[in-house]
Amino acid sequence: MTTETTPLSDAARRFLERTTPEIESTLDRLLPPETERPATIHRAVRYAVFGKGKRLRPALAIAAAEACGATRAILEEILPAAAALELIHTYSLVHDDLPALDNDDLRRGRLTTHKVFGEAMAILAGDALLTQGLDWIGRFPEGNSRAGARSRVLAEISEAIGTKGMIGGQVEDLEASSGSHADSRDADTDRLQFIHRAKTGRLITASLLLGVIHSGGDDSKVARLRSYGDSLGLCFQIADDILDVTGTAESLGKSAGKDEAQGKLTYPALYGIDEARRKLQAERERALDLARQIEGGTNLLASIAALVADRSS
Amino acid sequence: MTTETTPLSDAARRFLERTTPEIESTLDRLLPPETERPATIHRAVRYAVFGKGKRLRPALAIAAAEACGATRAILEEILPAAAALELIHTYSLVHDDLPALDNDDLRRGRLTTHKVFGEAMAILAGDALLTQGLDWIGRFPEGNSRAGARSRVLAEISEAIGTKGMIGGQVEDLEASSGSHADSRDADTDRLQFIHRAKTGRLITASLLLGVIHSGGDDSKVARLRSYGDSLGLCFQIADDILDVTGTAESLGKSAGKDEAQGKLTYPALYGIDEARRKLQAERERALDLARQIEGGTNLLASIAALVADRSS
Repeated sequence: MTTETTPLSDAARRFLERTTPEIESTLDRLLPPETERPATIHRAVRYAVFGKGKRLRPALAIAAAEACGATRAILEEILPAAAALELIHTYSLVHDDLPALDNDDLRRGRLTTHKVFGEAMAILAGDALLTQGLDWIGRFPEGNSRAGARSRVLAEISEAIGTKGMIGGQVEDLEASSGSHADSRDADTDRLQFIHRAKTGRLITASLLLGVIHSGGDDSKVARLRSYGDSLGLCFQIADDILDVTGTAESLGKSAGKDEAQGKLTYPALYGIDEARRKLQAERERALDLARQIEGGTNLLASIAALVADRSS
Repeated sequence: MTTETTPLSDAARRFLERTTPEIESTLDRLLPPETERPATIHRAVRYAVFGKGKRLRPALAIAAAEACGATRAILEEILPAAAALELIHTYSLVHDDLPALDNDDLRRGRLTTHKVFGEAMAILAGDALLTQGLDWIGRFPEGNSRAGARSRVLAEISEAIGTKGMIGGQVEDLEASSGSHADSRDADTDRLQFIHRAKTGRLITASLLLGVIHSGGDDSKVARLRSYGDSLGLCFQIADDILDVTGTAESLGKSAGKDEAQGKLTYPALYGIDEARRKLQAERERALDLARQIEGGTNLLASIAALVADRSS
């Protein structure tokens, strides 16, 4: 239906080409150097962060800020908090890949952190990434013009990654995989929605909110970006589920076919691959529709939705 | 030299009897209920938190605030942030007890979290405790009278528990135990000091700073409480090292004799038990001296130092 490089996703691709180096240089500048004591943990943290990553969450924060007309000065201010989203995302990958959880060997095109540094160091590296991430978000400078922005952002992020968000999603994901599929299709549908929204959707939405709140967007803008983020998060996760079936380890940078092997509750598992694709297309349309309602950001946000949804086709 | 209940530690004991119920009821009120979805993680979090704990770090925050003459209203305001210190401490225990790290079966008088809920859930429960802890600290209300207090506190706590603090101490502790003792006694001494200060000392100091900064203590008070905290942290850790040799699982609520079995770098291992005791007494005197320089808090803070140091005698 769509091709690898539709014109629609081009703007998003160019945007990521612009933001990725900025985000990576911010991470490089702010993370402790590998030589700093204790060196092992700083090496493990940098190893986990500097694999090939899309840096999607920081880019979403910047896109949302630009949609609110943020000046260059404001964008510079937001950059450390945006980069912190990547630390938090990386922490979740490092812990989820551990033997006790998803037991993955490959991530971001190379061996997982625990395969290289051992389990103990991977657990501690994840802890360090989470600590540092919340720290960078919480320290964000707060001008009088945007009083309360920092608290609101920290609250949004913490909820998005807490037990009712990312951690909660991972818990239900594990429980759904451990052979305890619910009795009915309705219960499975409900659980799948909870997992997807909690595990990925909420941090994607919170990343957009970080950008809009810090650049002084009004309540209506916040509400619109929230709706768009929820739809984008769903696109992201359905596409991810499909890619796990259709992709290769080389194209994904992580192991393929793991979901089915682990009995995970996914869109293809619950609906079959064709119906999963149809649902993705429907959600893609919804995301584009919601992007159209965001003045100042329509083109880029629609393009990002296309890029995210079309990964799997 | 000292007995189990010296008169000096009595004031601290009474203080803990007063603060512990307040802290525990704050934790109970603010943590998600066990029934909330996903129930497993909320049960695991509460299991980890509500074992028998001294609640020392929140009590230190309250003691420091009282030493600054904090009103009842300010103390009420500080309570969630103080309780958050217990979440952060508990996260460190849950992760340190994991099989990949210290592999402990007993903690706070009962089975460790991973023995009851499994490794995956223990890793996620630790993650949840850390997330929630930093969230409560970062959301702390900030009045104009104490502008900037929240940022300063979050910075102090994050540094105390980051890779140059608690996590870093755990890393060097693991590396020191893995048979890679340093070549020289000087190098071992340096490493032991780093481990103790980073692993326990810094969060103990940061707990005191949370109280003094949030109750508007001036720079000189902050500096004095910082010095006292560093000494108290050292007392705590030497006493802990000694207790691991002399205590029983029943008296400790955790396994005894683990340090030696795991080849840990401790005061008794490096200096022998008698010299370790002498060093503890010297540090106890130093802490009492430093407490005497804190107007408004001398009696309580000296008593706390005695309580902490005399645990092992």
